[in-house]
Amino acid sequence: MVRILTKENVASLLTMQDALKYVEEAYKQLTLGNAIVPQRIAITDPAPGLTLIMPGIIGGEMSALATKIVSVYKQNPEKYNMPTVLAKVMVQDINTGDIVGIMDGSLITAIRTGAATGVSVKYLARKDSTTLGIYSAGVQARKQVHGVYWGLNRKLEKCKVFDLKKETAEEFKNEIESELGINVEITNSGDDLLSDTDIIVAATTSTIPLFMGDKVVEGTHISSIGAHAPESRELDSIIIKRASLRVAGLKKACLAEAGDYLIPISEGIITENDIISIGDIITGKEPGRTSDSEISVFKSVGISAQDVAVGKLVYDRALEKGIGQNIDF
Amino acid sequence: MVRILTKENVASLLTMQDALKYVEEAYKQLTLGNAIVPQRIAITDPAPGLTLIMPGIIGGEMSALATKIVSVYKQNPEKYNMPTVLAKVMVQDINTGDIVGIMDGSLITAIRTGAATGVSVKYLARKDSTTLGIYSAGVQARKQVHGVYWGLNRKLEKCKVFDLKKETAEEFKNEIESELGINVEITNSGDDLLSDTDIIVAATTSTIPLFMGDKVVEGTHISSIGAHAPESRELDSIIIKRASLRVAGLKKACLAEAGDYLIPISEGIITENDIISIGDIITGKEPGRTSDSEISVFKSVGISAQDVAVGKLVYDRALEKGIGQNIDF
Repeated sequence: MVRILTKENVASLLTMQDALKYVEEAYKQLTLGNAIVPQRIAITDPAPGLTLIMPGIIGGEMSALATKIVSVYKQNPEKYNMPTVLAKVMVQDINTGDIVGIMDGSLITAIRTGAATGVSVKYLARKDSTTLGIYSAGVQARKQVHGVYWGLNRKLEKCKVFDLKKETAEEFKNEIESELGINVEITNSGDDLLSDTDIIVAATTSTIPLFMGDKVVEGTHISSIGAHAPESRELDSIIIKRASLRVAGLKKACLAEAGDYLIPISEGIITENDIISIGDIITGKEPGRTSDSEISVFKSVGISAQDVAVGKLVYDRALEKGIGQNIDF
Repeated sequence: MVRILTKENVASLLTMQDALKYVEEAYKQLTLGNAIVPQRIAITDPAPGLTLIMPGIIGGEMSALATKIVSVYKQNPEKYNMPTVLAKVMVQDINTGDIVGIMDGSLITAIRTGAATGVSVKYLARKDSTTLGIYSAGVQARKQVHGVYWGLNRKLEKCKVFDLKKETAEEFKNEIESELGINVEITNSGDDLLSDTDIIVAATTSTIPLFMGDKVVEGTHISSIGAHAPESRELDSIIIKRASLRVAGLKKACLAEAGDYLIPISEGIITENDIISIGDIITGKEPGRTSDSEISVFKSVGISAQDVAVGKLVYDRALEKGIGQNIDF
């Protein structure tokens, strides 16, 4: 019996508050050695787009085994009136191997990415943080705000947003103000996000740094979830140097893909040893923030363990609430 | 829209005759460089079983993109009254990346493995072959007979079978005789399969050679589809040495996994250069059998391209015949 969950089913079952707990647990189990994130498989030629096959397993209490298949086809909107990114998550029963849940994966991807930032905020941002500055007003960015909101345990009061597209920024403002009841201010430049904010989130498609690292004020926490290629980055070497906490969703993954860390390493500004995984802080293996003046950086490139955790969460909730359609294969 | 195809749907749509054509095309496109078989991902600990994630893509006219997720949990029958091997195939639209078909994969696995042997028989067995000897009477073995039957274009007349379990052999005899209308003889020893047979198929769970290679008569074609670990094999070094055609489903895959070739290579009996892919013969890059006295060996370890091809076949037929259930995710 396979539980089939549509986009609407997933939306009705998945909350950021829950996702944050599951993603935190995934990071914890990774550090404890109870979770495995195999190198994902990328398929392109002879297809006109990219497919990523991302399986993973998380032991411990969660006991989750799942694979996300996500495709990125840039021609889709124009040529087929379809989204660029399409995804599904196949959840297996860890005890039998049977696929027991198949669900739309687009919201899962956005929520798990927001949850990663949320976990980083919980462990790395100053406890008195109330203000967020966010680069990009796109779909991913909106879930980032939710992640920060729950990472701060609802203490977020204000969000400043910068996006080159005015209309997208207006949509963002309306959506976030109505959903979270916080004040949103649209700024005229990216640098406007750097003052009077406690947390900065970068969620753009940029491949070059978004701001000068020397303009960031002490005590700021920064989360970057865009840019995931060795030669691309959203953060410059200055801010990586200034930060005293340089954290990765998963260190191994960032050392394979994140220019934000790889470029400063290649420049000799930091070494691999200066980077830790967020799971190291969650498990107490490494201290987190120790003063209000520290700058902390969190970089996440997106790993299957996040999808596995959130896919399991959606599946668990679907069973609890009797949502979705059962198919006997 | 996703077409969901149950085990019964797949059984009603999939014929060995079709599968043979699709698997042959997959092998051809692999040699032409239009198909890609990424290294499959294996997930075990902390699960009590093995999951293999096997994506692949085939260009050309077939244009197929799919992933098989197959699990092997040895405790399933005893502990959960479930099959050891469970599988599903997710078929994507190669033009948009969208998952458009999800189907049970157990029959696909058995049929594509039979089809691989069938393709080898078509290209490597003597044209006047009429008799098969097969090691094992299990589920896989039965589909092997179907593969040989169609590979010989229905000229198979007789099948000799050896299995340690008498009851399984009887079931095999009844099933094959009624399905294919050929004569089945149950033998008392493995060596009985070696005389008066044109084709030998090894489809066992053995990890050591099934017979002495010097007992095989000239002109025989041998296909081995069991044993798929570097230290395991169904064929001994003598037969590999005696064969003048040493063929792989995919050379790269056999050099990674097939002890049948890897052990003789390590012994210095053959070199990597003595092995060719079946696609090299299909495309005419290499000659096939050139005399009736040659011994030919085909070794297949199972590659995603076979599942991708047969998954696409089932999906295509389902659309043509209006079979299955559409789900709007």
